[in-house]
Amino acid sequence: MTADFVKILITAPFHEQTLDKMKNNYQVDYFPELAKSEIEKIIHDYHIFVISTIPEIDQNLLKKARNLQLIIRMGIGVDHIDLDYCLKKHIKVHITPRANILPVVELVMSQLIHIMRRLQPAEEHLRAGQFRKALTPGSVLSGKTIGVIGAGRIGSRICQVARFFEMNVLACDPYLSQTKKNHIPAHQWVDVNTIIQQADIVTFHVPLTSETHHMVDEVLLGNLKKGGVLINTARGKIIDLKAVEAFMQKRQDIHFIFDVYENEPEIPEFMLNQQENFTLTPHIGAYSIESKQKRSEECLEQIHAYFSGKKVHGRIDLKRGY
Amino acid sequence: MTADFVKILITAPFHEQTLDKMKNNYQVDYFPELAKSEIEKIIHDYHIFVISTIPEIDQNLLKKARNLQLIIRMGIGVDHIDLDYCLKKHIKVHITPRANILPVVELVMSQLIHIMRRLQPAEEHLRAGQFRKALTPGSVLSGKTIGVIGAGRIGSRICQVARFFEMNVLACDPYLSQTKKNHIPAHQWVDVNTIIQQADIVTFHVPLTSETHHMVDEVLLGNLKKGGVLINTARGKIIDLKAVEAFMQKRQDIHFIFDVYENEPEIPEFMLNQQENFTLTPHIGAYSIESKQKRSEECLEQIHAYFSGKKVHGRIDLKRGY
Repeated sequence: MTADFVKILITAPFHEQTLDKMKNNYQVDYFPELAKSEIEKIIHDYHIFVISTIPEIDQNLLKKARNLQLIIRMGIGVDHIDLDYCLKKHIKVHITPRANILPVVELVMSQLIHIMRRLQPAEEHLRAGQFRKALTPGSVLSGKTIGVIGAGRIGSRICQVARFFEMNVLACDPYLSQTKKNHIPAHQWVDVNTIIQQADIVTFHVPLTSETHHMVDEVLLGNLKKGGVLINTARGKIIDLKAVEAFMQKRQDIHFIFDVYENEPEIPEFMLNQQENFTLTPHIGAYSIESKQKRSEECLEQIHAYFSGKKVHGRIDLKRGY
Repeated sequence: MTADFVKILITAPFHEQTLDKMKNNYQVDYFPELAKSEIEKIIHDYHIFVISTIPEIDQNLLKKARNLQLIIRMGIGVDHIDLDYCLKKHIKVHITPRANILPVVELVMSQLIHIMRRLQPAEEHLRAGQFRKALTPGSVLSGKTIGVIGAGRIGSRICQVARFFEMNVLACDPYLSQTKKNHIPAHQWVDVNTIIQQADIVTFHVPLTSETHHMVDEVLLGNLKKGGVLINTARGKIIDLKAVEAFMQKRQDIHFIFDVYENEPEIPEFMLNQQENFTLTPHIGAYSIESKQKRSEECLEQIHAYFSGKKVHGRIDLKRGY
C-alpha cells in the first residue's frame, strides 16, 4: 500500500503542526476524544488508529476494524488493549515511550529528594520566621539503598541517576536479557523479595500485567524496611490500596509517593487524611507543556518507519504484553 | 612534630565516634560553639583549629594563635576567615568540601524540577478533589538551557546531571583550566552575560569574593530571559536583595530558588509575601542527618594527611581566596 492511500484516525490529543505534517503524506481524520460508540461506526475505514488511555480496545471494536493494521498508543501502557485479539487479527501495537522516560525520572527524583531532605518543612520553618532553628534535618541519597523493580526504559534510567547520587542500587527484572542488564549500572540484580527487605527506597517501573496486578499486597508491605519510601509512578493497579490502608493501621513509618492509583481519579480518603505519609500527584508523570508535541512527533516518526520498512522503536510484543 | 603532641581545638559540631577516633592520635579539646572571647583566651595553645561558619577568624584572633598551623573549616565557604593574614602567618586553611557537593546538587535539582513541573499545584489540585482537571501543565527539563556560573566541585556535577536530563548546558568559570574544563560536559563555555541572556535557568556555584559580591544586581536581573528561574545555593551576599526587590516591582516572570541570603537568618518581607515567585529554604544545602559524620570523617582524614605529608584535598589557595 502506498502512503497516500493510508487512512489514519486520531482520537488522542495531537500537536497541530505535527498533524499538518502528517496530512502531507497520509489521509488523516482527527476527532479528539470521539465517543467509543462513534468510533465503532467508522473504524472499518482506517488502517492506523492513534489513541490515548481511551478508548478501550476490545474485541467488539476490533471486530469492526477490518482494515486496521496498526494501533499507536500515545504514551505508555497498553492494559486497555486486547493484545491477544490484536495478535490473532495481525494488528500491530506501538507506544510512544520516549516522551515519557525522562519526565517520569524527573518526577521520581524530585519527589524523593523533596521528602528525604524535608524541603517542605524547611520552607515552612523559614516562612514561620524560624530559619533553621529546631528544624529536623533530612537525609541525603548518598549511601541509601534504592530498589528498582522493573529495569526497562524508565527503570534503567533511574538506576543511572541513582548511581550519580552515590546510592546503592538493587534492581530486579526477570524479563531482561543479560546483555541488556550489562548496560545498566545496578550494583546487584536480585529478586523482588530481596529488594523489599533491603531497600530504603523502592520504586516500581513495571507494566500492568496479570503478574504485576496487585503485586504490592499486605505481605509485601509488611516486609518493607522501617522508615522507607515506596514510589509508584507506573500503573495504579499494581498496588492494592486496600492493603495500604490496612498496613497504615499497623505502621506509619513508610512514606508513599504516588502518581497513579487503582481507581483514578478516585483517591481513597485515608490518603488524603494522612498527608504526612502520602506525597501525591494526579498522574502527571508524562504530563507537561512539551509532551503532546513530543508524543505526536514520535507517532509520526513511527508511521513513517512502519511504511518504509525501517526498524520501529516502541513496538509492543503482543505475546509478552509490553 | 609527632602526632601525640598535636593539640586540636574543635568548636564546630562534631561527630562523637569520629571525635573518639581522633583522640586516639591527638590531644583534642571539643568545646562546641565556644564564645569567641573564650576562644581568644585559649587559642595560643593549639596547632589545629576546627571551626564552622563561626567564629570570625580575624587578625585579632590570629595574633593570639601563635602556635596555629592549620584551620579546618567544616563545610564550604571561607569568607569569614582573614585569608591574607593567614598567608602572612603561614597558617594553612582547609575546607571539607566532599560532604557538601551532592547534597547541594540534590537540593538544586529537586527544587528546580518541583517548580518546573508544578508539583505543588498538582498535589493541591488532587487534594481539592480535582485530580488533573484544569491543571496547568508544567515543563520538563529536556531541551531547556541551564547556565551554570562557577563550575568547580558543585557546578561541574550540576553540568553532569543536567546533561543526563537532556538539557542544553552553558557554563562559565574564568578560573578553571582548560584541562579541567575538558572533563566537564558543558555544551559551551561562555561568559556570565551570555548565560544571563540565553539560559532558561541560571544557577550560581561561586565562592564569595570581592568579585562575586553583589554580582547579581539590577543590571544582571534586567537581562534575564523571560519566564526563567534563578537559583542561589552558594552564598547569600552574591545577590543584592534590594536589587531583587526593585526588579520585582517591574517584572514578576522570574522564579527564584534561594537557600542562602545576604543577611541570613533575616529574610526580606517581599520574599515572604510573594510566595509564587520564591521557593525558599533556610541554608540547608549541606544540612542533613549524615552531614556531621561525613564532615567529621573528612576533617580527621585531612589531619592525618597533613601530618603524614600526603596530598590533602580541600586546601584553600590563600591568594586566590577559595
